[in-house]
Amino acid sequence: MLDYAELDAPDPLYVLRHSCAHVLAAAVMELWPDTKYAIGPPVENGFYYDFEFSKPVGEADLPRIEARMADIIARDVPFEQVLLPREEVAARFRELGQDYKLEILEHEAAGDPVVSCYRTGDFFDLCRGPHIASTGKIEAFKLQKLAGAYWRGDEHNRQLTRIYGTAWPTRRELDEYLTALEEAEARDHKRLGKELKIFALDERTGPGLVLWLPNGATIRRELERWIVDEELARGYQHVVTPVLAKLALYEQSGHWEKYHDTMFPPMRTDEGEAYELRPMNCPHHILVYQQELHSYRDLPARIAEIGNMYRYEKSGELMGMIRVRSIALNDAHIFCTPEQLHGEILAVMDLARYFMETLGVSDFYYRLSVRDRDSSKWAGTDEQWQAAEAALAEALESVGVRYVLGKGEAAFYGPKIDFQVRDAQRREFTNNTIQVDFQLPERFDLEYVAADGSRQRPVMVHRGAFGAMERMIAFLIEHYAGDFPTWLAPEQVAVLPITDAHLDYARCVAERLRAARIRVELDSRSERVGKKIAEARSRRVPYMAVVGGREEEAGTVQVRNRAGEQSSEPLEEFVGRLVTEIAERRR
Amino acid sequence: MLDYAELDAPDPLYVLRHSCAHVLAAAVMELWPDTKYAIGPPVENGFYYDFEFSKPVGEADLPRIEARMADIIARDVPFEQVLLPREEVAARFRELGQDYKLEILEHEAAGDPVVSCYRTGDFFDLCRGPHIASTGKIEAFKLQKLAGAYWRGDEHNRQLTRIYGTAWPTRRELDEYLTALEEAEARDHKRLGKELKIFALDERTGPGLVLWLPNGATIRRELERWIVDEELARGYQHVVTPVLAKLALYEQSGHWEKYHDTMFPPMRTDEGEAYELRPMNCPHHILVYQQELHSYRDLPARIAEIGNMYRYEKSGELMGMIRVRSIALNDAHIFCTPEQLHGEILAVMDLARYFMETLGVSDFYYRLSVRDRDSSKWAGTDEQWQAAEAALAEALESVGVRYVLGKGEAAFYGPKIDFQVRDAQRREFTNNTIQVDFQLPERFDLEYVAADGSRQRPVMVHRGAFGAMERMIAFLIEHYAGDFPTWLAPEQVAVLPITDAHLDYARCVAERLRAARIRVELDSRSERVGKKIAEARSRRVPYMAVVGGREEEAGTVQVRNRAGEQSSEPLEEFVGRLVTEIAERRR
Repeated sequence: MLDYAELDAPDPLYVLRHSCAHVLAAAVMELWPDTKYAIGPPVENGFYYDFEFSKPVGEADLPRIEARMADIIARDVPFEQVLLPREEVAARFRELGQDYKLEILEHEAAGDPVVSCYRTGDFFDLCRGPHIASTGKIEAFKLQKLAGAYWRGDEHNRQLTRIYGTAWPTRRELDEYLTALEEAEARDHKRLGKELKIFALDERTGPGLVLWLPNGATIRRELERWIVDEELARGYQHVVTPVLAKLALYEQSGHWEKYHDTMFPPMRTDEGEAYELRPMNCPHHILVYQQELHSYRDLPARIAEIGNMYRYEKSGELMGMIRVRSIALNDAHIFCTPEQLHGEILAVMDLARYFMETLGVSDFYYRLSVRDRDSSKWAGTDEQWQAAEAALAEALESVGVRYVLGKGEAAFYGPKIDFQVRDAQRREFTNNTIQVDFQLPERFDLEYVAADGSRQRPVMVHRGAFGAMERMIAFLIEHYAGDFPTWLAPEQVAVLPITDAHLDYARCVAERLRAARIRVELDSRSERVGKKIAEARSRRVPYMAVVGGREEEAGTVQVRNRAGEQSSEPLEEFVGRLVTEIAERRR
Repeated sequence: MLDYAELDAPDPLYVLRHSCAHVLAAAVMELWPDTKYAIGPPVENGFYYDFEFSKPVGEADLPRIEARMADIIARDVPFEQVLLPREEVAARFRELGQDYKLEILEHEAAGDPVVSCYRTGDFFDLCRGPHIASTGKIEAFKLQKLAGAYWRGDEHNRQLTRIYGTAWPTRRELDEYLTALEEAEARDHKRLGKELKIFALDERTGPGLVLWLPNGATIRRELERWIVDEELARGYQHVVTPVLAKLALYEQSGHWEKYHDTMFPPMRTDEGEAYELRPMNCPHHILVYQQELHSYRDLPARIAEIGNMYRYEKSGELMGMIRVRSIALNDAHIFCTPEQLHGEILAVMDLARYFMETLGVSDFYYRLSVRDRDSSKWAGTDEQWQAAEAALAEALESVGVRYVLGKGEAAFYGPKIDFQVRDAQRREFTNNTIQVDFQLPERFDLEYVAADGSRQRPVMVHRGAFGAMERMIAFLIEHYAGDFPTWLAPEQVAVLPITDAHLDYARCVAERLRAARIRVELDSRSERVGKKIAEARSRRVPYMAVVGGREEEAGTVQVRNRAGEQSSEPLEEFVGRLVTEIAERRR
């Protein structure tokens, strides 16, 4: 989690980028003096500045701006801080026609008699600093792109032109960063997802509704079967429940009241019924729990489902498979006694860790989200909160993992542990949570029969352990850069006969592999084997089995892996090796 | 298929039941002379008569009616046909106050100057006959139940009381039938589905929306994995597509126009979009097909999915898992060249046969549904129809199966083969179809690149091979009377320690079985083993492994199967036997 206190300290990289933003604005003002400049902060990995141009400025102008920035850097202009009376600064910006600065001055710095400004040659800006000594200290920068941005982020305001750039202490670091960025873009799940025929989005179904093409469906099937089997082995009970229900169910659960803005509109029938696509799976799992009266002996009841749920996100907020409107979540709800809570949390953490480790995901951390002192915001009693927060914290501590504390970041119905993962493009997201819920057991009057025969409320835990299929497979596409481990690869072996004369043997090889439940494609076209190899490589097939006369005679295959390594192997040895690699889900 | 011509011939059983319906009405009129009698036809396995009573008559009155019927039978009253002038009959019924008979006379017999009536003692009815000679010929009958029924089946009309009965030539046949019926009712999927915790319906989700409880989800998962793996092995490509789309997609496909009465209402967003739960999966599979340009070399494309689709059936028409609103169909759409059609049909028939044979379903037959001479009703050209009908007929003939011809029963967009199955309650249903479709390829402008480089329309085949999960599992519950074969049984082995002293060994046995991926429950309660056995039997567990001191010493288990057979087996032998039984899906 970002520690905001740290931002106050002058991080040199932050200062460098902040200064570079000023140089950008200075260059723009030299080139187009009637431009209005708004704000120019440093951001993660770089900086930007927002402008209102009097004539269109586009990507094509970036080199020219860069050249002028280089010029200002060559001039080694000092950054001078000047503390001036508010009114003098206002007069100055009024004179310059800089309306945005005037507005900032009015709103943000309203109380201060004296305000801090910076001068860089002729360029004058309202700014707290700090800055580098002079422009000559900037060794390595690059402008990256333009984007539209509303003034103050409000779509009712004027749209400005935002110019993004990055800056680094050295040329080498800049180059490394740009290379890493290029690689991340090459991994982009939207690009690879299309190229590898994993998924498609089609205007005719509507935005955010993913079509899983055969390759994507195969990856998903392998993951789902693995998840379900593992959960069953760990004492979960998988169910299948409908994706819709009467609207009244979500009124009872409170989802309608809180989330109706991001729910699909109700389906209202002529008979006056209203049905609703579910925004979450919890109410259905509660209904499953309520189909029988539970004894404390049956608990915990761990009700699980790869459940589809629906969110009517704004179309502008949708992105590939990362933000979608139909979400298949590896969901479960645990109904347990208060005494069982600690063990259940540990078990979920262990399951999530097992899933992530198997997939080779190590860049994640835990956040414990608890309530704050404002007691009016939280459902449930003090005792419930204390017990649940303690159970979550103890669980984290007993496995000795590092975690950050999110004060006031609990759900209103209970505290939670978030699993924060960073993807290949360094975006952070919550792929799983363990949430303790005091609210729904009340709303649905959940019960179990305790040892003394009395009726008691179970504790309810919402938990993820893998994540949403859409989000996680988008993540994995980028994580593996398209090179899925063999067990997940849609095509595991490409059998490539060298000439048509070897087609019969190639068929035998393909059949033998198929009999071992390996996903095989036989390339039987009369093409040069070099072309077949290149195409199989572009499909990211983990293994190619090239077969010619020598292989046929010896009962072998010439194996090529994705790293380009080659070896000649007896067919049975190759089959055995692959079966083990797949069964063990090796990376 | 019912041959309507045969109904005209006086089937003796039909005549007997028809006469018995008259005796029922005669008995009712003797008991409550101010009753109005409506219609009383024979039906499959029995007969009914609809009455408007002037005072409430219920199930409790059936014995009294039966006794009076027996009395009329004992009197051996003759059935006399009398042909009378229309007006005289009308006057007679007017005098008797029999409004329903008058209405029938007005509508159905409007043109006839002379109408046929029957007299049975004092009872007088409008009737074409034929009938048995006299009531004394009735050897064996039974009244079964009462139900409400609208006059002419129209819910806007008055509700009448329908009394159902059955009649057979001999007492023995009646008893056999009643026993069979009792057995069928004991198999009823609603009863067993609840008892075995397979599924639940809950008013809070809404009618027809099935909650698959853990046991049902297990059966479904086993079936789905089997189906998907088998289809993949046979060259299908499984996909996953969203259950909703923009309404416009179903306008383009024609579904909205034809089926909007049984579709869920659209979800209309504030931005003016309308989304719709899909009534069928075809449009989505077409979109998948259209994600790339296909060459004739890629065809056939067999796009498959266990796809959820939604029907807003009237709540009165819903029944258990047989008629539901959310249907998970084992669906696929084959896009092929006209030359490939024959082979594809054969392959689907073979797949469906394989599924049904494995499940032990043998009571099914094929119906070839073709168009009739009214050419205006059918989409597509004569050549297309001839080719498709020939392909379907040749496929049926080449495998030498018996089939009936359904003239005029084709879908409007093409001919089809229906697989008609009869369930344990002797209800017939179509569990699969192979439909050739000329319409959707046009509506969606489907194409492939032919060998000569030209763009051609593929033939599209809609096909089922297993059926809908809801309908088929309802069927299987009844088919197996709850005794699912081991591979499908939610609990495959119950491990039952004789006393608590044997709990450790019982745990070892359970663990060993679990390691072999067998679904095991260990009954660790301190209960008598007799009670544990009785409970495992009521859960319909295929195998019980009873373990005590002797078993622990010898490393064996005492195995009991559902037939009550017992044997002592070394644990490893038992595990091996089960693994094979499950892998081979033995019945």
